[in-house]
Amino acid sequence: MNGAQSLIESLVKAGVEVCFANPGTSEMHLVQAIDATPAMRPVLCLFEGVCSGAADGYGRMRGTPATTLLHLGAGLGNAVANLHNARRAGTPVLNLVGDHAIHHVAYDAPLTSDIEGVAKPVSAWIRTSKTAEGLAADGLAAVQASLAPNPNPQGGVATLIVPADCAWGEGGDIHATSVQRQLLPPSTNAVTKSAELLGPKTMLLLDGLVLASERGIELAGRIAAKTGAQVFSSTFPARVESGAGRFPISKMPYFPEHVMATMKHFEALVLVGAQEPVSFFAYPDTPSDLVPEGMPVQRLVHRHEDAIAALEALANEVGAPAEPAVLNELARPAMPSGKLNTGAIAEIVAATAPEHCIISTDSGGGGAAYPVMQQSVPHTWLNLTGGSIGQGGPVALGAALACPDRRVYALLGDGGAMYTNAFLWTAAREQLDITVVIYSNRSYNILEVEYRRLGVNDVGERAGSMFDLSGPDIDWVGLAAAQGVPGCKATTCEEFAAALDQAGEVSGPFLIEAEVTARQ
Amino acid sequence: MNGAQSLIESLVKAGVEVCFANPGTSEMHLVQAIDATPAMRPVLCLFEGVCSGAADGYGRMRGTPATTLLHLGAGLGNAVANLHNARRAGTPVLNLVGDHAIHHVAYDAPLTSDIEGVAKPVSAWIRTSKTAEGLAADGLAAVQASLAPNPNPQGGVATLIVPADCAWGEGGDIHATSVQRQLLPPSTNAVTKSAELLGPKTMLLLDGLVLASERGIELAGRIAAKTGAQVFSSTFPARVESGAGRFPISKMPYFPEHVMATMKHFEALVLVGAQEPVSFFAYPDTPSDLVPEGMPVQRLVHRHEDAIAALEALANEVGAPAEPAVLNELARPAMPSGKLNTGAIAEIVAATAPEHCIISTDSGGGGAAYPVMQQSVPHTWLNLTGGSIGQGGPVALGAALACPDRRVYALLGDGGAMYTNAFLWTAAREQLDITVVIYSNRSYNILEVEYRRLGVNDVGERAGSMFDLSGPDIDWVGLAAAQGVPGCKATTCEEFAAALDQAGEVSGPFLIEAEVTARQ
Repeated sequence: MNGAQSLIESLVKAGVEVCFANPGTSEMHLVQAIDATPAMRPVLCLFEGVCSGAADGYGRMRGTPATTLLHLGAGLGNAVANLHNARRAGTPVLNLVGDHAIHHVAYDAPLTSDIEGVAKPVSAWIRTSKTAEGLAADGLAAVQASLAPNPNPQGGVATLIVPADCAWGEGGDIHATSVQRQLLPPSTNAVTKSAELLGPKTMLLLDGLVLASERGIELAGRIAAKTGAQVFSSTFPARVESGAGRFPISKMPYFPEHVMATMKHFEALVLVGAQEPVSFFAYPDTPSDLVPEGMPVQRLVHRHEDAIAALEALANEVGAPAEPAVLNELARPAMPSGKLNTGAIAEIVAATAPEHCIISTDSGGGGAAYPVMQQSVPHTWLNLTGGSIGQGGPVALGAALACPDRRVYALLGDGGAMYTNAFLWTAAREQLDITVVIYSNRSYNILEVEYRRLGVNDVGERAGSMFDLSGPDIDWVGLAAAQGVPGCKATTCEEFAAALDQAGEVSGPFLIEAEVTARQ
Repeated sequence: MNGAQSLIESLVKAGVEVCFANPGTSEMHLVQAIDATPAMRPVLCLFEGVCSGAADGYGRMRGTPATTLLHLGAGLGNAVANLHNARRAGTPVLNLVGDHAIHHVAYDAPLTSDIEGVAKPVSAWIRTSKTAEGLAADGLAAVQASLAPNPNPQGGVATLIVPADCAWGEGGDIHATSVQRQLLPPSTNAVTKSAELLGPKTMLLLDGLVLASERGIELAGRIAAKTGAQVFSSTFPARVESGAGRFPISKMPYFPEHVMATMKHFEALVLVGAQEPVSFFAYPDTPSDLVPEGMPVQRLVHRHEDAIAALEALANEVGAPAEPAVLNELARPAMPSGKLNTGAIAEIVAATAPEHCIISTDSGGGGAAYPVMQQSVPHTWLNLTGGSIGQGGPVALGAALACPDRRVYALLGDGGAMYTNAFLWTAAREQLDITVVIYSNRSYNILEVEYRRLGVNDVGERAGSMFDLSGPDIDWVGLAAAQGVPGCKATTCEEFAAALDQAGEVSGPFLIEAEVTARQ
């Protein structure tokens, strides 16, 4: 058994079942090993940012890593933006990056580059294998690293670089067994101190795995019921279990002035896996740190500590009741009519979404559906985590592969969707039930908003050309059809509702180009 | 004048005229400065790999850098693959990467990452500005660095990281003046030693700027006329002036066994800006170093030394005649007929191409047109340099912007073109005369070839799924139309010739989906 085969078998034994692949020549022995291992499912993506984003979506839903298969430093480079997002999400992801044979690197052939250097800004763990014999063990170590409690709160991305001779040489023994996510136990002291701070003027700010857990959200609701504390999530948590029957979680706003306005209502802050609120971007005359001066801040847990156990202890400490006092009720909005806009899209999705659907967003338009979805069916909400747009489509792809029985919505801005539009092709090939909604406002709308925040009210033509996605308009229905995804355009609420119906009826993906107006 | 304005004015004074932009919030002051500076042309690209590839194409044609405008580490990450290619090409490229304000970085907001870390594997020069006052000088230093003789033979990519507060703060004085490429003088000793080695059994192996120069190629031809030395280029030089009236340059083959078969005919090797031939990839039982054992190797110049001056001296030293003994003759091939294939595409392009066209390739199919084009019109040939496919389209875009009076052909594999398909949108917006030919074989054909080189003759279904781009077939005409680029499909030579005619008649880009068979 060669090293490649030993590695793939080791990964399968450790619980890795899916490989989002964009291989090249140096990965041919890994391809051969995957071919020989039916328990590892290869999923070809035509751009590496689709591989890394899909692995993120898969890992968020499964809690265990998928692997990517990437071609040297340049292939890994194409994956970097969505690995940055995955790192911010804290998702377990395993990158397999092929390299030249060890003896070949020194010859500096054209594809040679500093692969570890490319990996470093996005990886919590990096190893370049040294021998074929050690490759199986390296694979197990990579899986373990992706699931380990990492003192870096954005851990989860493990990158294993596989020189071609380690893949083709004689492999070693496989000792791997199934690996689960490891979390550190919470601090008793932090529980006590958090309990002391809780009251009606306290914000309980959640981020990380606690929001991905119905149990965690219920615990937060029970603590709120007893203490009056108000429960928020950070602005862009990786995954939230939301909708009817779950305790309502408010989302921290995006712009710093809105965060400050929110924080003003509070006198204390307890952090459950979250960071202290900071401005997403810096602006002249706006502070970075958005916690009001003098506000006491207590951390219950870091993201790599067991938030559920901590909330259990905290609920006991405060004597919380067995249930939250309030839960989201199922109160679907009425169907709007007339010209389509961002708010109407949210209402129509909320009015019609099937139970246990998954919603992946990476734009402000998509994000606007979060509040109204709280009164819709129970569902899983996936955010753009690291601010690098182009994540939502690939994340939807990975989530759909992880959860084939659940409908997935990808609510995407047109600008963001262009970066990684090849996710459509893989969705078609794998016939995944993804309803893609493109908010087609023909603009990097957020940039025009931000530009006006500089105080420029009259945007010059040349500046405007850098935000404007018209001229030519992108025909999203055509772009999807060209990659095997059927779709249609909607300019009214009625058309959009009909399109959603159609999307629900077809097998496989469906794209709706929703014409909305910029700056509405 | 704020820092951003001082920077853009400094760049303009240093000769930088085009900005391939994909900005975000942290770059808004730079956008404002570009808006206010008519001499800097903003060109929006919808994916950063298009920005970096276009800057490469522009720099190859102009010899001076264009700038990119990128959004923090994630935006730079998306540019990495084509920056790797640009680095291999030795092209002057200037990256402007926005960052958070300096005081904001420590708060670790979601888009924060190690930008210098992302830049390092692809940049010869990196600086993070420290003050608004120093930003204009930093810009000049970046331009100088992109054009400096770099001891790293793959220099040329300069990355300037611009914290937002350096852009919005009060800028300093501008001292920039036009900057030209700097090369080190050649070594007299190397000229003498090279002359001693020249003879009919000597290979003169060229790479770098010498091939981009009619004068350099002529000098090589004159030296060959006197000494009998045979002139080759490396496999993937960045730019070659080729076609009728120029001295013929043979290209080193790709596969190592073919390189070895070529090298066997020679007894000595003289390197003019080239590296010693090595295998592109490593294979079991194949050497990395492809220079026959014991063959004397003499370097005339490194890529950062003045190859033209060295060849002048060498021509004098050997007493070369005033002209090469042979030049390519204009002998356009006859038009083929019947079913289209890679060879026929090459013949039809060679039969019809207008004088001084530019050809950009990034696949084996496109590369196959090189020999037949030598007997066609004088033209400029641009190769994929670093092996990271997805370069050809963006390079064509940049070349077309640099040379608006010349027709540009982008001869692209379907797999490669998918990585950066958004180049089509910018080509449409800027109405550039690019004829895009997609070799649609619905396959990563090279991978199937490489896989079979492992000795596997029966490719399994799961392995095959990782090379196979069918299921669904990509409709390239639709993908182009969706981005504003007209086009048509061709399955026969007659259709392809008619399509080329049509491409030549329309204003702006035109795409031809050329149906070819995999593994022909």
